[in-house]
Amino acid sequence: MNSPLSRDSEQTLTEQLVQRFAERIEQHLLPPGSRLPSVRECAKNHQVSPYTVVAAYDQLQARGLVEARSQRGYFVRMRDLRPPARSQGSAASPDAPVLPIDATTLIRGMFHEPGKRAMPALGTLPPAWLDAPMLGAALRRVTQGEGLAALSLHYGHPMGDQRLRQALSRKLDEFGIKAESSQIITTVGAANALDIVSRTLVQAGDAVLVDEPGWAAEFSRLQLMGARILPVPRGPDGPDLQVLAQLAQAHRPKLYVTVSVLHNPTSVMLSPGHAHQVLRLAEQHDFHILEDDIYAFLAPAHATRLSVLDDLRRTISIGSFSKVLTPGWRVGYIAAPTHLVDRLVNTKLLTTLTTPPVLEQALAHCMEQGQLRRHCERVIGQLDVARARCQTLARQAGCQFVTPPQGLFGWIDVGVDTERLTHPMLDAGWLIAPGALFHAQRKPTTLMRINMATSQDAAFWKALQAARKNLVSGSA
Amino acid sequence: MNSPLSRDSEQTLTEQLVQRFAERIEQHLLPPGSRLPSVRECAKNHQVSPYTVVAAYDQLQARGLVEARSQRGYFVRMRDLRPPARSQGSAASPDAPVLPIDATTLIRGMFHEPGKRAMPALGTLPPAWLDAPMLGAALRRVTQGEGLAALSLHYGHPMGDQRLRQALSRKLDEFGIKAESSQIITTVGAANALDIVSRTLVQAGDAVLVDEPGWAAEFSRLQLMGARILPVPRGPDGPDLQVLAQLAQAHRPKLYVTVSVLHNPTSVMLSPGHAHQVLRLAEQHDFHILEDDIYAFLAPAHATRLSVLDDLRRTISIGSFSKVLTPGWRVGYIAAPTHLVDRLVNTKLLTTLTTPPVLEQALAHCMEQGQLRRHCERVIGQLDVARARCQTLARQAGCQFVTPPQGLFGWIDVGVDTERLTHPMLDAGWLIAPGALFHAQRKPTTLMRINMATSQDAAFWKALQAARKNLVSGSA
Repeated sequence: MNSPLSRDSEQTLTEQLVQRFAERIEQHLLPPGSRLPSVRECAKNHQVSPYTVVAAYDQLQARGLVEARSQRGYFVRMRDLRPPARSQGSAASPDAPVLPIDATTLIRGMFHEPGKRAMPALGTLPPAWLDAPMLGAALRRVTQGEGLAALSLHYGHPMGDQRLRQALSRKLDEFGIKAESSQIITTVGAANALDIVSRTLVQAGDAVLVDEPGWAAEFSRLQLMGARILPVPRGPDGPDLQVLAQLAQAHRPKLYVTVSVLHNPTSVMLSPGHAHQVLRLAEQHDFHILEDDIYAFLAPAHATRLSVLDDLRRTISIGSFSKVLTPGWRVGYIAAPTHLVDRLVNTKLLTTLTTPPVLEQALAHCMEQGQLRRHCERVIGQLDVARARCQTLARQAGCQFVTPPQGLFGWIDVGVDTERLTHPMLDAGWLIAPGALFHAQRKPTTLMRINMATSQDAAFWKALQAARKNLVSGSA
Repeated sequence: MNSPLSRDSEQTLTEQLVQRFAERIEQHLLPPGSRLPSVRECAKNHQVSPYTVVAAYDQLQARGLVEARSQRGYFVRMRDLRPPARSQGSAASPDAPVLPIDATTLIRGMFHEPGKRAMPALGTLPPAWLDAPMLGAALRRVTQGEGLAALSLHYGHPMGDQRLRQALSRKLDEFGIKAESSQIITTVGAANALDIVSRTLVQAGDAVLVDEPGWAAEFSRLQLMGARILPVPRGPDGPDLQVLAQLAQAHRPKLYVTVSVLHNPTSVMLSPGHAHQVLRLAEQHDFHILEDDIYAFLAPAHATRLSVLDDLRRTISIGSFSKVLTPGWRVGYIAAPTHLVDRLVNTKLLTTLTTPPVLEQALAHCMEQGQLRRHCERVIGQLDVARARCQTLARQAGCQFVTPPQGLFGWIDVGVDTERLTHPMLDAGWLIAPGALFHAQRKPTTLMRINMATSQDAAFWKALQAARKNLVSGSA
């Protein structure tokens, strides 16, 4: 991916360029709707003539991979996620923001590890920070003797493994969330938890409030359901309360999906004052709140949470073990108001029927033994060190942190459109997470998210600085 | 559950009756919409006076658990699965059949095992027929050395574990289904596979054809999505082609969800002639077919399949390991036309993100070693024996098989409304699957589904015969 074009190849330079872009598009490293570099920029990057680039872009267009938009350049062609709209168009609404991205495709890019390097775009901790021996010992323990048969030969309980739900009940109590095990439902990771809650509370055509910036996959999920997405600007203390109130008044939303603790991508924390006001608005306009708490294990226990202030009355909290123990096992959970539990379990039954008790009980074992706690302390310590190093490297590379660095992510300003930066960074072998990924309308931005744990390599920051300078001088 | 009411208890007989019904309702053994026994019937069953029963039913009504319908008796109160309909009501349609059941609640009843007896209502093989040592050895094998880390510390591939997809590609080839591993997507069991396909192809308001009788959970899933369900009567050779053609003409359905091999609950097989006609209608009216093939491993390999005749062009095949290896691990799959793969993977990413590769690779190991094949041969042999014994017992108990017994299920006529039979059978400690469970409109029927493997106990058939006679003489 990062080798320069070859002049000794049997392929022409045009063919090599076509192949390079075609591969990135097919591997979802360049998502639909993303802009190709300008002809001049591409020619400069690859030291070829503009004619070569024009010929390559023409071929990509002929192959149906890109499309030209007049006066704006070449874009990766959109493949629509949704079935074609019906003629009645009842679910569509003029209020719904047009979402020009297929965010799932953006996520898919994240599953590619170009080479073996840790990627700054990654959403999880690097594997080396996790503890496979702990997981292995727990798995062996719960499957020994009759254990494996008991956990494999019939369906698990619809709500999930009882031991894990009890361990989670105790753990959530440490965060101040009072949830009995009878209020906890296990899920296939946080994605499934978010999906179950939104499918239970939202119908096609309903309005849903979301944080902006926020996680694009959540926008896509709601879009798939035919919901109308209402982005609420996220400030350092929480959502913009005035916008929240206006949107709630005008659109009668059913749900507000938000991250209070270590917000993705900004890492900001909700303030107690904002939390109180958000809950007042939720009550006044009668909407539910889905508090996405997937960074809980990486945060201070005393962080402000809506589900604590609200005592799980109109707030549903969801979480997962993907960010701290194992992304691969796909174990997450919902902590819900008692009156919603039955409906949520019904939706779970229709989505996945049940979840695998064998993996759930192994995680319960890790929690019961205090291993999870010790592991989290270790990871948080490592993250502190990584963050300090990352801040130094970022500043040396001329990047600004726009919010105070905390937790796993840094939200930085690099001074040039980060989507344009994607191409030279891929050429250099680095996958980045441009800020547009976190905006419902994908507006160009100079911001990007970096993963503190996987952005430790000085070579990454050097490449970033070089690409940045190149773009600045190119557009000057 | 099966003890008689006590005259020496501190509780009155009324209180005991109230408690018994309340528990069954709360445990979902009596689903919403189901009818309580008539006052006379209940009084007779429990040898109490009609006044006692009336008092008990009044208390259940006061507690909000049942409701009286004039001239029709008492019914378990409905709790609606869906959010309340919006005033515009755009998704609703006068054509949509009214579905008076919350089928997920019916499924939930199946997770209760009253006592340790094998239950005729069960949808899977009894645990004793499965092979935990095989699963344990496979799990140990794929997690040894660096295996566990590789399968746990990062997300799996969005399409699922590559080894399992390759093994499935070879397995499906034995059934005549030509699917490359690049056309196979793993899922959290068949439920998730059905969900992913329907969410990809169906929007709120769309019409979907289903088999009737058929699996109620599928009706509920489609209902949750706001789809309009169009039941097609299922005959011995396949769907009623005339009805199928008329509904397709009138409603322009997007999808037909059907079981071709060992249809649930009737166990009938699709005939080649019907298969050809169904595909012609699908082409003519441009709908997709979702072929639910979860009994594939229990059937003759040469069984007629739409996905074979169609060569996966407008047919999507789904399956799972729940019916033959492990319900608890929740591993299923989709084999899809190439042009749909990308959209299906996108939906999977939004539903569960990825699936656990550790369990998937262990199943791949079982397949690669030929263990799955030998296990299936063994189970099919056991099932043949069980079926023969079951047929004898059923006939002795005065029950008729309405379709030729094959595979796991028998579809029998017991001569009395099987929903009324639910109560005395629960009193005797047996959970049954009444025929109404398989009808979109839950019409009363004298049919019920039995699981051949779990209906081997002569005591069950005796209890059934007694309850049947009692109902016949009671209503005479």
